[in-house]
Amino acid sequence: MTKTDIARRVYNHTWKLDPICRSLLDTDFYKLLMLQMIWGLYRDVDATFTLINRNKTVRLAEEIDEGELREQLDHARQLRFTKKEMIWLAGNTFYGKKQIFEPDFLEWLADFQLPEYELSTRDGQFELNFHGRWMETTMWEIPALTIINELRSRAAMRSLGPFALDVLYARAKAKVWSKVERLKTIPDIRISDFGTRRRHSFLWQRWCVEALKEGIGDSFTGTSNVLLAMDSDLEALGTNAHELPMVLAALAESEEALKRAPYDVLKDWQSYYGGNLLIVLPDAFGTESFLQNAPDWVADWTGFRPDSAPPIEGGERIISWWKDRGRDPREKLLIFSDGLDVETIEEAYHHFKERVRMAFGWGTNLTNDFEDCAPMANDRLNAISLVCKVSQANGKPAVKLSDNPAKATGDPEAIRHYLEVFGDTNRQEQKVSV
Amino acid sequence: MTKTDIARRVYNHTWKLDPICRSLLDTDFYKLLMLQMIWGLYRDVDATFTLINRNKTVRLAEEIDEGELREQLDHARQLRFTKKEMIWLAGNTFYGKKQIFEPDFLEWLADFQLPEYELSTRDGQFELNFHGRWMETTMWEIPALTIINELRSRAAMRSLGPFALDVLYARAKAKVWSKVERLKTIPDIRISDFGTRRRHSFLWQRWCVEALKEGIGDSFTGTSNVLLAMDSDLEALGTNAHELPMVLAALAESEEALKRAPYDVLKDWQSYYGGNLLIVLPDAFGTESFLQNAPDWVADWTGFRPDSAPPIEGGERIISWWKDRGRDPREKLLIFSDGLDVETIEEAYHHFKERVRMAFGWGTNLTNDFEDCAPMANDRLNAISLVCKVSQANGKPAVKLSDNPAKATGDPEAIRHYLEVFGDTNRQEQKVSV
Repeated sequence: MTKTDIARRVYNHTWKLDPICRSLLDTDFYKLLMLQMIWGLYRDVDATFTLINRNKTVRLAEEIDEGELREQLDHARQLRFTKKEMIWLAGNTFYGKKQIFEPDFLEWLADFQLPEYELSTRDGQFELNFHGRWMETTMWEIPALTIINELRSRAAMRSLGPFALDVLYARAKAKVWSKVERLKTIPDIRISDFGTRRRHSFLWQRWCVEALKEGIGDSFTGTSNVLLAMDSDLEALGTNAHELPMVLAALAESEEALKRAPYDVLKDWQSYYGGNLLIVLPDAFGTESFLQNAPDWVADWTGFRPDSAPPIEGGERIISWWKDRGRDPREKLLIFSDGLDVETIEEAYHHFKERVRMAFGWGTNLTNDFEDCAPMANDRLNAISLVCKVSQANGKPAVKLSDNPAKATGDPEAIRHYLEVFGDTNRQEQKVSV
Repeated sequence: MTKTDIARRVYNHTWKLDPICRSLLDTDFYKLLMLQMIWGLYRDVDATFTLINRNKTVRLAEEIDEGELREQLDHARQLRFTKKEMIWLAGNTFYGKKQIFEPDFLEWLADFQLPEYELSTRDGQFELNFHGRWMETTMWEIPALTIINELRSRAAMRSLGPFALDVLYARAKAKVWSKVERLKTIPDIRISDFGTRRRHSFLWQRWCVEALKEGIGDSFTGTSNVLLAMDSDLEALGTNAHELPMVLAALAESEEALKRAPYDVLKDWQSYYGGNLLIVLPDAFGTESFLQNAPDWVADWTGFRPDSAPPIEGGERIISWWKDRGRDPREKLLIFSDGLDVETIEEAYHHFKERVRMAFGWGTNLTNDFEDCAPMANDRLNAISLVCKVSQANGKPAVKLSDNPAKATGDPEAIRHYLEVFGDTNRQEQKVSV
């Protein structure tokens, strides 16, 4: 006999919306860390964030209804941090430190809401921009991405019946679990979930996080998703992102100041955070240039997060730089986080074993690997390389060069200027799949 | 087509237990307030808590399997406060006050676990005792009651099919909702959920709390259940219970000290709490005696919670006492909490309107009113008057006289002695249904 909850069913009939973003904590932890610093030091700076779909062949605006997207974005704008969330932010220990967030910052945060958005459709793509104060627009990055990615998943599954859906998720679960079993065989590995932005859906990310928690136990060090960290008593993980050097570079008034920007931002960071939060993200304007011109104190930081060079080459370059500067790499930390999957994790782990401390931030291939899972081939379930990047600061173009020219963003004229200033050494084109 | 989640179904096959008590916060808030004071002032005192079933005709041990009861009690003993729960206790505002719990107390609480229990069966009833330090045994009161009450509900519903269950809950929901609609018509009323101990089940209490939240809005002032308060961002409510004067009276070394005990306990309380937490519970040894012998400063407390006299008589007696002592009752608070239902709430509200501030703590008739809801008559779904009371302190008998002799507890010899000391004025026998 089929048991149907009539009241629930009828309530569901009247649903206007099944919200994707239901909490302002459903974001990456680094956004909150950066936000406190932006609020503290750059509260008058304007910054525009812009959606960029690197997979041009995927015509997003033909897969997703613009009206549905607006409804989800509008819903996210109604959210506030709840009482329980604020208490947790104030009272939890992050990276071993209590009260990482200042009371004044939390007081401001309690009234935070996402600012307005500007959305239109052109040539099959969405033009989605967030204009306003940096300390407000920065918070759109993750909700904008999770909303679009989940709307895309929903659209892709709309025609599937209950059995097809059951099989789809069964295969995807089996796939994640095989990966978990492989990782389990590597002693002392440290893996965390960095898959919020590209996830298939919120519920699916939660499933993946719980699978890792059960599957690899202490090797699972936490999640970048603040809501999941709170709900599952996991560590909230993350440090900083390219937007910091990108905005500071855009604000630079001279070539001298531009060259100094990647290091000035580290000083700002250090005025707020210490210990394992002192992680350098070196590739905003090319890692080679960053290392060559870095002041010596940069080598005292806890570690680096190479984010666009191939893991082994990128890691070796940083290790040899630490040695040149007289530091022992075995006391340093490398955090890998660019397009990882089990193979690349295993390879990097075995390559660097005992030569440096390592952590792996596993993203898209953890929370959105549905390839070959659908009963009938369905390209639209494959993750795409969608980002939401700062494009302007106080009206001036923001640029990222990256170690991989395919990941560069910004106005072409400005990119040319930055290449003149920072050089082009060791940058190499690689396919960007996610 | 029936959609069955195979993985979930098979997982369920291996369930050993569907735990009733899943969190140490699933208790009444007053237990935590009292616990901090006991921990602070009486940490070396031993106290035994004992289960008492006032409905002797209900043969509990014939309705509930002793083995199942042991499994549930054992499960509760494995619980610890989780990280999120500890953060919330430390960071939340209770009764308008931050950090109501001292850091030292919370540090101790973080390792808390429920102590051992002693269970046997005699003449169709359970003999369930908790021996040990007061600051440990006191925490068994609520889990012991919720576990036994929910095991009894489960047993009563074991033979019901899915349709019968559906109809049962549909009727119970309709019943709660009619009550909510009646309460909604009373402007300015203040109702809270005090129904944890006698609830039908945890999920049902949650439903009732959510129904009140949606149904009467701001008139719903919160819940005594700490877990539900946290999860639903409601106020956690509660002050103190009879165990405080009962233990202090048991410890009294002289008749003089015994007479002073009901007031000494208020001084202890006042050293920890203030404002709306200064609520007198006057009936442990009879309200009349309490009022006649009370020092004048007792009239400065915020309010009284008459808990065993009929609401109108009990309230009038306290109001006239306030007037005798030159206090304005309109600035005072009466909290009614004894066996309330919509009729008694309405009656008391209209009787005392504008003469005194009022709050209503609605318990059993909110969270366990299944009378006439089962498709076939089922007495075993009716709530019973089950309590878990302190019976000894440091080896000496603990006594409660109450304003209603039917609610008196303790060794008959000791009760006689207490009646000699405190007198018997204005105590009157009333039927105790819940």
